[in-house]
Parts: sequence; structure tokens; C-alpha cells
Amino acid sequence: MIWFTEYQTENVGLTLKVRQLKNVHSKYQNIYLFENQDFGKVLVLDGAIQTTEKDEFMYHEMLVHPALVKHKNPEKVLVIGGGDGGSVREILKHPSIKQVDLCEIDEEVILISEKNLPNISGKLRDDKVKIYIEDGNEFLNERKNYYDVIIMDSSDPIGPAEVLFKSSFYDKVKEALKEDGIMVAQTESPFLQEKFFKNAVKEIKKSFKYFGVYTGFVPSYPAGMWSYTMASDNINILEDDEGYKKLKNIKTKYINEDIYKSLFKAVPQFIKDMIEEQ
Amino acid sequence: MIWFTEYQTENVGLTLKVRQLKNVHSKYQNIYLFENQDFGKVLVLDGAIQTTEKDEFMYHEMLVHPALVKHKNPEKVLVIGGGDGGSVREILKHPSIKQVDLCEIDEEVILISEKNLPNISGKLRDDKVKIYIEDGNEFLNERKNYYDVIIMDSSDPIGPAEVLFKSSFYDKVKEALKEDGIMVAQTESPFLQEKFFKNAVKEIKKSFKYFGVYTGFVPSYPAGMWSYTMASDNINILEDDEGYKKLKNIKTKYINEDIYKSLFKAVPQFIKDMIEEQ
Repeated sequence: MIWFTEYQTENVGLTLKVRQLKNVHSKYQNIYLFENQDFGKVLVLDGAIQTTEKDEFMYHEMLVHPALVKHKNPEKVLVIGGGDGGSVREILKHPSIKQVDLCEIDEEVILISEKNLPNISGKLRDDKVKIYIEDGNEFLNERKNYYDVIIMDSSDPIGPAEVLFKSSFYDKVKEALKEDGIMVAQTESPFLQEKFFKNAVKEIKKSFKYFGVYTGFVPSYPAGMWSYTMASDNINILEDDEGYKKLKNIKTKYINEDIYKSLFKAVPQFIKDMIEEQ
Repeated sequence: MIWFTEYQTENVGLTLKVRQLKNVHSKYQNIYLFENQDFGKVLVLDGAIQTTEKDEFMYHEMLVHPALVKHKNPEKVLVIGGGDGGSVREILKHPSIKQVDLCEIDEEVILISEKNLPNISGKLRDDKVKIYIEDGNEFLNERKNYYDVIIMDSSDPIGPAEVLFKSSFYDKVKEALKEDGIMVAQTESPFLQEKFFKNAVKEIKKSFKYFGVYTGFVPSYPAGMWSYTMASDNINILEDDEGYKKLKNIKTKYINEDIYKSLFKAVPQFIKDMIEEQ
């Protein structure tokens, strides 16, 4: 019997019974794929669980839909990271979308997801999608005033994704957005990864005039508690809007109109206090 | 180096680095207390984590405050289980409270908590609190039309707490409540413990006219995702009320006015769907 343990900190781990499927080293990282009875197939990068068949909808829906319904008419969207394809799948549910660019540094992640996780990656070859195998930081040097929404679907801020959590990078994101553009980033767990979380919020705050943090469940991520930060230079993120109406026509399993309406409000008080401090 | 693993299912575990403090067998169960760098002191009953110093506030605040502010003027409250004292501590924050009865089957849990977890158990000897070392099921035979609020702070529905999740038991809870009384129960994790969750909701629904389910983070519990079910025969649980105003004057770290306002609404859609099916 084989078990895989993700050490979420030096003192805490999530341990899963494993049926091994694949274990390869790409140019950038170790990619490990296995199957677990409760989580389905599990994709692990450098020891950290990225996506599981059973709970990926919680992460991808909460990462993608709030920014896309907050924006009045998103047509061009960029995903940085997100090689498993889950964010792209959710983006394409919005009828206004005309173009989705995916910038993933590691092609192996895409290829392994396409071969093994079709329910997650199945929309990556949609006509509206263009895949760039590039470093997100360099990719943005070429794109100015172009996207309506940019989605930061990155791995943890250690290794290849570290640069994606710095204010100098968020400044480039801002420049790549149109004037009324919106960015959203996964910003780690406020519990067990408090430092990563606080730092991400602090850096985003340096770059954008408006921002807001929300939380959601992701059982396979540290503490089962995940955070997302939305930001813009022209849209007051925290202001109420009627974006929830657009959710009526989008098929989801996690987010609903009520979750959107209370998104930035119904956040645990200790997290609100941490945000205030940054 | 010693690690403790709670196998939350046959295929998933939470593993914590351990500094052992105590490991005893009481009349009812194994009681294990250890210290972990990220969770602080951890109390384990029969292999299942019950409470940790670092995240117990998330559980106890969400279990206690919603029912106490939903009720117009709670004076007499009963806790079944809850030997660690965390629920009692939260109840006593409400100025209307005159009497708190705690019915815990295992005195050892109380004694170990009082000796080792003073921040959690510290209010158990308050003048308003009366402790009964009894089986909750039998205790209720003697109490009719007496309590304003009853809080089911039980362990998992296996072993000594199994009976506390059956409709025949909830009927007794109803009889022990005054006419406008409210019950709230911890009802397990909707992910990883889906069967326990569905069954608890189904049984509560059989006994009470009105009910509502809400969720919250508890990192040390299965999936980090916990559920609570509130029920009453006379108070329409799902109706909006002004209970949130009472939260203004109560010091909390997790629940706040906004969380209360969207309590039964901002629930992930797949959980709402599960509730509908019961």
C-alpha cells in the first residue's frame, strides 16, 4: 500500500492512499499523477497538490467566475499558469468570451493533463483558446492594454512561480489590462500559509488602486481554506454590482448568486483583520 | 520524530508532528493529547481530532453564535457533549444568558481539558454553568419544555455519540426545548463524510418543522469544511432577522455580521443540492 503525503508545513501533512499513474521530471519540476479513492486523479507539482478530480471545481469556479461577472463585458482573457485547463473550461462558459490566452511555462503539465484529466483539460483545444508555452513574466512584456481579465492560476510562490507574486510583476499585469480591466489571483491559504497569503495581498495592494479578498473551500489544499484576491485600477472591486445575475445562466457546482453577493463580506473576521494589516 | 495521523477516511489522512502530552483510556474512549507547532495543543478522542488550540474558535463560534442570536432572548442553554468547554465559553459571551447546562458523558474529557486547555475550558466553572456527567440521551428524558437553545456539540456518529444523530433523539431535543426554542448541531463534513452529513440532515428534518444548514472552515476537521444544522418547530430558521446586530457587542475572531447575514445563503451549490435531496 502506497501513500503520498504533501507536507503543507514542516509540521502538517495531507496523506492520500495512492494508485500510481505517472511520475516524471519536466524541465521545470517534478510532475506526479496518482489516483485516490476520495479525490479521484490527483496532479502534484514538486510535492504540492495542484488539482484533484473531485474538488477542482471548487477552486476553478471561485478563481474564474467572480472576476468574469464583475467585468461588464469580458471578451479577451489571459490565464497565467493553469496548465491543467480547469480555468479555461470555466472561462468558456461565459458567452461574451472571444479569446482566451493561456500562458503556461511547462508544456508537460498541459500534455499530462490532456492525456489523463480530460474533464479538466477538455476545452484547451477550443477554437477560442491559444496556448503559449512561455514564462508569464516575459509574456507580459509584449502585451499592453490588451486584456479584459487576467487570471493568475499559479502554483505556490516557491520555485518557478515565485516571481508571479511580486509587485513588479503585478505592475506588468496592470499594464497588460485594458483601462477597465480586472485581475484575480489565487493567493494561498490564510491558515498554514499565513506568510504567503499576507505577502501576496501586500504586493497586489502596492500595484492596484482597488482590491478585495475572498475565500472558499478547497479540501485538497492546505487547511481546506483558500484565498483569492481581485484587483483593478478603475473598477471599485468592493462595490456591490449586479454580476450575480450573469451567474444564473452559467452551470456551476460551487459558486451561486448568494455566494457572489456576499463574496467580499462573508469572510472570517481573522482574515479580514489580516487584510487590514497589510 | 513522532507523527499522529487521523485517517479521516480509509484513503485520506491528516498527519501532524507530535510532542506527546497524554494518552489515556477513559471508561468510554481513548483520549490523546499532543502539541503541534501549527495547531497548538490537540485533543483527540478515539483517533479523531476534536479540538485544537489554533482553530477551535472557528468551530465553537460557528456552532454557538448563530443560534444564540437567532433566538430573541436566550436565557437557558444546554450543551450536549462539548466537554472541552469551548461552546460554554462562547455561550457566556451573550449577556442574556442565565443558565448553561453541560451534559458530557465522559468526565475525563472535562478534567483533561481543564488541566491542559485553559483557554478553551476556562469558563466551565463559571457560576452560571452546571455540569452533568451523563448520557445525553438519558439526560433529556428528565427535561421537558425547559431550554431556549440546545447545542449538539458531539463527536462523530460512531461509538458513544451514534445515538445523538437519530431522529428519535432529536424528538427528545425538541421536547426539551421551549416552544420558541432552537436547536443547533454540528453535522459533520459534506466532503469526505458525505454519508454522515446527509444522514444527520435527514434525521433532523424528520423531527423539526424548520431547519437550515450552514458551513464554515475548520482546518483540523475532515476536508477543512464543516457543516452545522439549526432547527426549530416554531422559528422559521431561514427567514432573515436582525440577529446580526447582537454580534456587534460580542468579541469574535471568526463570525461577523456579514457572515451571519448570508449564513444559510452563501453555501456552496453542491451542498445546497445535497440538502434538497434529503
